[in-house]
Amino acid sequence: MRDAMARAPVGDEQSDSDPTTRALCDRVAALLGQEDGLFMPSGTMCNLVSILVQTRPGDEIIVDDQSHIYNTEAAGSAAIGGVSVAPLKTAAGIYSPEQFEAAIRPPARTAPRSALVSIEQTTSFSGGSVWDLADMRRIRDAAQARGLKAHIDGARLLNAVAATGIPAAEYARGFDSVWLDLSKGLGCPVGAVLCGSKEFVVEAWRWKYRLGGAMRQSGVIAAAGLYALDHHVAQLRVDNENLHLLHAAIADLPGLSFDPTAGQSNILCFSVAGLGVSAAEFAGACLAEDVRIRAIGSQIRVTTHLDVDRAGVLRAAEVIRAVAGAFAAKA
Amino acid sequence: MRDAMARAPVGDEQSDSDPTTRALCDRVAALLGQEDGLFMPSGTMCNLVSILVQTRPGDEIIVDDQSHIYNTEAAGSAAIGGVSVAPLKTAAGIYSPEQFEAAIRPPARTAPRSALVSIEQTTSFSGGSVWDLADMRRIRDAAQARGLKAHIDGARLLNAVAATGIPAAEYARGFDSVWLDLSKGLGCPVGAVLCGSKEFVVEAWRWKYRLGGAMRQSGVIAAAGLYALDHHVAQLRVDNENLHLLHAAIADLPGLSFDPTAGQSNILCFSVAGLGVSAAEFAGACLAEDVRIRAIGSQIRVTTHLDVDRAGVLRAAEVIRAVAGAFAAKA
Amino acid sequence: MRDAMARAPVGDEQSDSDPTTRALCDRVAALLGQEDGLFMPSGTMCNLVSILVQTRPGDEIIVDDQSHIYNTEAAGSAAIGGVSVAPLKTAAGIYSPEQFEAAIRPPARTAPRSALVSIEQTTSFSGGSVWDLADMRRIRDAAQARGLKAHIDGARLLNAVAATGIPAAEYARGFDSVWLDLSKGLGCPVGAVLCGSKEFVVEAWRWKYRLGGAMRQSGVIAAAGLYALDHHVAQLRVDNENLHLLHAAIADLPGLSFDPTAGQSNILCFSVAGLGVSAAEFAGACLAEDVRIRAIGSQIRVTTHLDVDRAGVLRAAEVIRAVAGAFAAKA
Amino acid sequence: MRDAMARAPVGDEQSDSDPTTRALCDRVAALLGQEDGLFMPSGTMCNLVSILVQTRPGDEIIVDDQSHIYNTEAAGSAAIGGVSVAPLKTAAGIYSPEQFEAAIRPPARTAPRSALVSIEQTTSFSGGSVWDLADMRRIRDAAQARGLKAHIDGARLLNAVAATGIPAAEYARGFDSVWLDLSKGLGCPVGAVLCGSKEFVVEAWRWKYRLGGAMRQSGVIAAAGLYALDHHVAQLRVDNENLHLLHAAIADLPGLSFDPTAGQSNILCFSVAGLGVSAAEFAGACLAEDVRIRAIGSQIRVTTHLDVDRAGVLRAAEVIRAVAGAFAAKA
Repeated sequence: MRDAMARAPVGDEQSDSDPTTRALCDRVAALLGQEDGLFMPSGTMCNLVSILVQTRPGDEIIVDDQSHIYNTEAAGSAAIGGVSVAPLKTAAGIYSPEQFEAAIRPPARTAPRSALVSIEQTTSFSGGSVWDLADMRRIRDAAQARGLKAHIDGARLLNAVAATGIPAAEYARGFDSVWLDLSKGLGCPVGAVLCGSKEFVVEAWRWKYRLGGAMRQSGVIAAAGLYALDHHVAQLRVDNENLHLLHAAIADLPGLSFDPTAGQSNILCFSVAGLGVSAAEFAGACLAEDVRIRAIGSQIRVTTHLDVDRAGVLRAAEVIRAVAGAFAAKA
Repeated sequence: MRDAMARAPVGDEQSDSDPTTRALCDRVAALLGQEDGLFMPSGTMCNLVSILVQTRPGDEIIVDDQSHIYNTEAAGSAAIGGVSVAPLKTAAGIYSPEQFEAAIRPPARTAPRSALVSIEQTTSFSGGSVWDLADMRRIRDAAQARGLKAHIDGARLLNAVAATGIPAAEYARGFDSVWLDLSKGLGCPVGAVLCGSKEFVVEAWRWKYRLGGAMRQSGVIAAAGLYALDHHVAQLRVDNENLHLLHAAIADLPGLSFDPTAGQSNILCFSVAGLGVSAAEFAGACLAEDVRIRAIGSQIRVTTHLDVDRAGVLRAAEVIRAVAGAFAAKA
Repeated sequence: MRDAMARAPVGDEQSDSDPTTRALCDRVAALLGQEDGLFMPSGTMCNLVSILVQTRPGDEIIVDDQSHIYNTEAAGSAAIGGVSVAPLKTAAGIYSPEQFEAAIRPPARTAPRSALVSIEQTTSFSGGSVWDLADMRRIRDAAQARGLKAHIDGARLLNAVAATGIPAAEYARGFDSVWLDLSKGLGCPVGAVLCGSKEFVVEAWRWKYRLGGAMRQSGVIAAAGLYALDHHVAQLRVDNENLHLLHAAIADLPGLSFDPTAGQSNILCFSVAGLGVSAAEFAGACLAEDVRIRAIGSQIRVTTHLDVDRAGVLRAAEVIRAVAGAFAAKA
Repeated sequence: MRDAMARAPVGDEQSDSDPTTRALCDRVAALLGQEDGLFMPSGTMCNLVSILVQTRPGDEIIVDDQSHIYNTEAAGSAAIGGVSVAPLKTAAGIYSPEQFEAAIRPPARTAPRSALVSIEQTTSFSGGSVWDLADMRRIRDAAQARGLKAHIDGARLLNAVAATGIPAAEYARGFDSVWLDLSKGLGCPVGAVLCGSKEFVVEAWRWKYRLGGAMRQSGVIAAAGLYALDHHVAQLRVDNENLHLLHAAIADLPGLSFDPTAGQSNILCFSVAGLGVSAAEFAGACLAEDVRIRAIGSQIRVTTHLDVDRAGVLRAAEVIRAVAGAFAAKA
């Protein structure tokens, strides 16, 4: 990948004349079945720009209560877009079409205007759960019928593709905006690609520029994205298999509890409250055995990726079993 | 009241030289035990300015999910203040101190900064329920200990005072901002008064001016506020009594359901779903008998005020009983 | 006027059911030849809402460098609308059509989008100068041909009408938004009316509400506006005549300098720099003789209105002559 | 440079654990004599974040009327920061300390609050003119004495250093924020570094993240910055010498006019209006001879950099002379 980056032909992205960046945008747009694409320094900017282009100040967007947009994008939608967020209550980041429809506000002078709905595929903080395609389409159709835009936060969309075999373009079909992250499962150093209609991308470019996201010879980093699409996509299926292996190895441990949809792709979240121990303590005990897992609030979160192989996963499972056993013995 | 308005001495409010407006602000500030006050064209502007002064773009405010701020102020906090809202799930607009504390975000570069908490006393859409003073103080203290400002949306604060006998200044003590509406129970044509520290009011004036809320000879309308504080406060207790009367008269009707805290002041909400009829249909049937009650979503909302006397309330109860009976017979 | 206010029939403005407010809006819309109107607590809110409805964040508006919008509305257009201001360099608040056209930005991803032009008729800080109707129309046409909206800040539009005899509807014809202030020359305590197309007023209402400008029984103050339109308009011509009298009486004083367009309506600005004295000192010396004139920066500003009669004006001229003579003697 | 990028050690920038990015930030902070630094995807984001951290909505910033901030950053300061811009009238992008002080607004409830002043060193659209160090310090001191922050847009600061021999840290001393662009004269593909106090950088990080400027393994591009600081700084002096050469060769051409400060570093602007031809036509005629110069409005702009050597400059001068001669002959 570094080699591909070192040899990339470049130009000035700000005048749309960087050939590598152009090639990456075209490739991702085709993969997602969208008209056009735009290279971005981060997935955060993809979500933000999608909102900025498709709403006005005083509008409201509908998301799940565990989404990145609501929790970990520093309230950019409100701070920069003047947009209010209606967070739908969910167990694992997935809401029903009925929940969504009930959250659309009837038009009124005094109410925010419901303007956009976002689906995060796969879910993140709640554990890599995969949205059902039929539900996504019901939400998309209900949104558009009521005058809302439908957006996919596709940071881990290709993990869903690896889990279900459904093509990315099928997931993205008919949505008004959708993006892929290059720096997560795909293993690139920097970047994401935001896609939509040609008209959408023209307006998105204005906001990208205004936010300071317009770069110069961005081909040097876009080259990594092209390389990853050639060489790292198959790995996503392996990541999912490794996660299943881990899940299977610890699913029966007393004191651990899992959401019914847990472990569908490359993320596994579970609670250790049943062991009478905090998530931070549990993660600390694993780290002492050189296994790095993350405590997020009261949950443990484990992710598989390019740099973790089958042996590593089996060893992690072993350590988790041992740590859980030790805490259970004390409790 | 019109007479008091016609005789009010006035000056230019924008240079703080309208004597009637000044007198009203001083009077409300004293009533609420605050240092200073500011006359506003509406309660909406009171909530908005309180947020604008006490937050920065990218901050988050914590409110109940049935509050005016979240639902019926046209997302002004996001649109104008760049502030995100965390709506706490409640049955009747009242959340617990524990719920509040759990919603404060741990400091992080990626998260919104929790900056202000708002309590709406009494609750509105959920039915005039009265916040417990001790709970309010626990929330206020927890907020301030964690660096948040504590705000009271006191549109109907005097209705709570009438219901409990606790002075307004006791409710408002130690809060960073609090306001009274003049145009609801107090019966004035226009206005509200926002109070806080002297420093708060200086900054609030800048925003009032910037929003276009600075008027000229506002004494003509402020005079109504002074009149109402002299002559209409006792009426609030009567309004509450009338509401209790109504509540008692319909509480046992089959098919109607009430929140346990319903009917504590001058608002009563109830569901008619048990009759197999929509709130709009139910309200329509009452209107046909010349009794005006309001359908809000799936709820009926009844309010007592200055212009509704005991006889009117008894007649309304009678009509509601008859309408409910008729629908029950059909079901 | 107070009597008219005391007897005004009222309703709830927020549901458009206050008959007096409705009558005032209809009357002003007709006077300005616009489809519809909206009652506002201040002229500041009229300018602000006009900008909010007709621009998007990142747009630019074009105004004169002495305008209220640029100087004395607390940067509301940027703070609330996210809109940049291009202030045109002028001597007396009046720019040429050529200056305006040169300031429109060519479309570019990197530039603000020129979106609205504002004309303040008459000029304020620069002295009540009257815009030429033909120039206004050239600016309006050039704006609309290039995709910009054309707005009139008509705080003192009726003073221009009094000066030229051109009907208000002629000045306002074809502009996208225009407003009248009720609390300046017309002598009402509070309010202004913003007019435009029906569609514009629908959107303006949303912003009025969001900003906190929606009142309740606003008929009590709107009644003053109706009264003023019946009884105070003729006075504006008298105000202008009084100003001319004053101007003529001091125009030849050594040490005072006037803009060539000075004194066309009811405001007169002049510099006293030629006397070697600051504007504040000069105003102070007049105040010692009980004549209140205003120092704004390095200029003196004199205004005639309802409460200043011919005798008062003659006496003011006498005092100004004496004060100027005294300072000249010292210099 | 590509080789250095390919071999760069990396980590996750979002947790401040990318060693190459960290090394670059430390190096630039030391060069500018500032406490800390922050890697950014663009110079536009450096200006924007500096404003966002150091102002509040409704504030005003003071810049020259030819600056990037006012003209070519898509009004981000207003759109995102809610900040108004006061553009000072200049011939070549350089205003005097007196002009600056006269533009600071006296505190008033109705006026924007003057909050920050920006100096662009060297000037860009007006031709690479170099700000005088003593003037910069007078402006900085006057700003800070009046409560404003002082910012340097240092996109081309190292070109000023090359021109005057004054160290970058001397220019930056005492300013509240300052940044360097890596992708202009330094020849890197992407990026800029924003510096200030430790406290400033903490807040700047929040905005960088919120805007979507937080990347992952940004070391791959930061490595280019370290390489450029080692190998490309000396080139800046050569760029300036080449520009002087070009300037000397065309300075006497009839019909061309230059600002007195033109040609001080690596940019040269001049007008061809004296030839009776538009800038676009003139640039087109040069391009026909394979010499690429830029028409910006009514000006020609020529820049020297890494990829233009002495021979290229001499040939460009020859072509410009010939083209000017041909147009002069026709006129």
